[in-house]
Amino acid sequence: MAQLMKIDGKRLLQDLLVLRDFTDTPGSGVTRFSYGTQDKKAREYLFEQAKALGCRIETDALKNVRIHMPQNKPECKRVVIGSHVDTVRNGGWLDGIYGVTGGLAVLRALKDCQLNRNLELVIFAEEEGSNFGSTMTGSKFITGSYGDPDLDKLKNDQDISLRTILGDPSPADLEAVRWDFAQIEAMLELHIEQGPVLERKGLPLGIVEAIFGMQVIEVEIKGVGNHAGATPMVDRKDALCAAAQCILAAEDMVRPDGISVVTVGRIHAEPDCSNVIPEKARFTLEVRDRDNKKIQTYMDRITAAFKEICSQRGVDCQITRTSSSKPLSLDTGLIETMKGLAEKKRIPHQVMDSGAVHDACMIANHARTGMIFVPSIGGRSHVPEEDTKKEDLILGAQFLLDLASDLTGAK
Amino acid sequence: MAQLMKIDGKRLLQDLLVLRDFTDTPGSGVTRFSYGTQDKKAREYLFEQAKALGCRIETDALKNVRIHMPQNKPECKRVVIGSHVDTVRNGGWLDGIYGVTGGLAVLRALKDCQLNRNLELVIFAEEEGSNFGSTMTGSKFITGSYGDPDLDKLKNDQDISLRTILGDPSPADLEAVRWDFAQIEAMLELHIEQGPVLERKGLPLGIVEAIFGMQVIEVEIKGVGNHAGATPMVDRKDALCAAAQCILAAEDMVRPDGISVVTVGRIHAEPDCSNVIPEKARFTLEVRDRDNKKIQTYMDRITAAFKEICSQRGVDCQITRTSSSKPLSLDTGLIETMKGLAEKKRIPHQVMDSGAVHDACMIANHARTGMIFVPSIGGRSHVPEEDTKKEDLILGAQFLLDLASDLTGAK
Repeated sequence: MAQLMKIDGKRLLQDLLVLRDFTDTPGSGVTRFSYGTQDKKAREYLFEQAKALGCRIETDALKNVRIHMPQNKPECKRVVIGSHVDTVRNGGWLDGIYGVTGGLAVLRALKDCQLNRNLELVIFAEEEGSNFGSTMTGSKFITGSYGDPDLDKLKNDQDISLRTILGDPSPADLEAVRWDFAQIEAMLELHIEQGPVLERKGLPLGIVEAIFGMQVIEVEIKGVGNHAGATPMVDRKDALCAAAQCILAAEDMVRPDGISVVTVGRIHAEPDCSNVIPEKARFTLEVRDRDNKKIQTYMDRITAAFKEICSQRGVDCQITRTSSSKPLSLDTGLIETMKGLAEKKRIPHQVMDSGAVHDACMIANHARTGMIFVPSIGGRSHVPEEDTKKEDLILGAQFLLDLASDLTGAK
Repeated sequence: MAQLMKIDGKRLLQDLLVLRDFTDTPGSGVTRFSYGTQDKKAREYLFEQAKALGCRIETDALKNVRIHMPQNKPECKRVVIGSHVDTVRNGGWLDGIYGVTGGLAVLRALKDCQLNRNLELVIFAEEEGSNFGSTMTGSKFITGSYGDPDLDKLKNDQDISLRTILGDPSPADLEAVRWDFAQIEAMLELHIEQGPVLERKGLPLGIVEAIFGMQVIEVEIKGVGNHAGATPMVDRKDALCAAAQCILAAEDMVRPDGISVVTVGRIHAEPDCSNVIPEKARFTLEVRDRDNKKIQTYMDRITAAFKEICSQRGVDCQITRTSSSKPLSLDTGLIETMKGLAEKKRIPHQVMDSGAVHDACMIANHARTGMIFVPSIGGRSHVPEEDTKKEDLILGAQFLLDLASDLTGAK
């Protein structure tokens, strides 16, 4: 029957174009933080589309959303298609939202079918961590790796807690966020690759096998602020020069590895005046790899090198671990199913790693999980230039439909 | 007669304590930008004090202020005591304002004297460049090194021009800002040292001979923003790593010199997210020395090194020169007068350089100019910890009074 079911590619692209305009930074990519106005607008648009299909919509205390097909029955197991609608600052128009609109396209295609499993589209809240500096917040609450105390620990740039933003949810409402994973048959996430591998090889489809783990630290270096003209070089304890040395040391250490990656994405100097020697420098650093031991080894070596550099310069160095996720392997059964489907449909593809983490990582520890990649033009993502060929966007959604049809016995 | 005239040290300290509270960052030093609310409050306080002495107050289109002694006469030449009331962000309680309150103390002490020169206290506007990134803006307009076009060029962080902030002054009002230097007998500035020299030598008084010149550049490095997990190290064009390498190269180059100093005080990454490879990094860099040729040589070597580093990393590097001032020697006659006064009063002192620039530098190109330093505790300035011993503050003001009395023939 799967051969008869077709994605409405035109509507998929139309959805994506409409949603691209829900941004706080028009003209500079998409900036759509969870819990903000643009996030609400994007959700409203998606809810309208889902309601037109007769779907029932359920929003939990974290603002994770479950969109239920009208034919779902309480006794059936759940096949979940999920991704997110939030973005990084000045991010792209596809990261996250492509998986959600792709899922919506699947619901549209299957709306009049009989299913032997419940089919759901899930929007995970606060995946990017743009508000609270911690990724996959919604799915962490769903799986129980975050709980009540984290509502206070997670604070945004204005020092407002997640608890306040959510309107102080009751213990019962918070408990209801957690899923009963015995009910989950499978979780599927469709996503852009966000890297250069598929494009370089000219392949339209990637089947994800392993997802990189990561560790993130925040480094605060405290030196001595002073007048930039009147303080001789030998008398300086310049926090920013120390930070620069640390950043280069980390890059030098990890670059030859070939697989591991290290990134310093944020940096701030205080007081941030051209004529004052920086008193403080703060920056984030993350290391990723498919091997958790390697991540830990690099992190140990990096923090030791930072302490050595700062000690030699006579400045103080505080390192705080802010978040981490372990590398993981996705479900081998689902990988085989996807390989079979791709071969049957003669889609050039490869089994590959994901350097980025996704909500799928959280769910994969509790339920069978599969991920589908389509190429990113120039390997670019988390930037306004993020893009994917139209035909690849449609091909990926069609592949998701074929897989979901297979798993729900759609006919 | 000079022996009879005494500074009211208690009132001087009281003025300084009152003015310390006019800050946008209570508890974190003094943040008082020109044209802001706290700047207005500080000026109002000073105006009240001056009016109580019968002084006449004149404010020009740039908001430079001239406070005229009641006994001043149109035909007399001017002896000017001047400094500024604005600060850097989270700066100290003495930089600038000490010279203004010291001048006020002199006016108080001489209010009932006969003078054979006009005595004026001047507040120079926007000395620190905290709004527009260009120092000594007020005195640059006074001397004509800035003019009408600069009102549009100078823009603050919110992209508002100086012209807008000043309410679009008429050409006549702008012309009236410039001083007729034929009328200027002498300009005196009393200031904290902002460096460690006087304290280290246990001297309460410095007589400034040369002032460091400086060149300031803004560097913008443009790489390629990308996802921090999915982009292999070899595929990266990380703007922040390039900036870190540049900062270290400049430090390494200048540190062995012993006199020249180089400072990177501001840095910003874009998009400034922990999980995005920085697309852009922008920073300021300044070089100072008492020898202009050395400044130029270092600047040439630094910019060449930056271009080489960026070219090797395949990132773009734009360097813009934002401001500069030439090193200069202050008036030898005034230096001799001050040395004579200090010897007569048996004040331990030394003739020295100033690593910091001051409004005095602008005026010195047009009129006889002298500068007096008092020690900075720990050599610290432009930070909340900036401080000077009370007795040194009073000694410096008394020395300014003695010098001004001498120059105005006070009796």
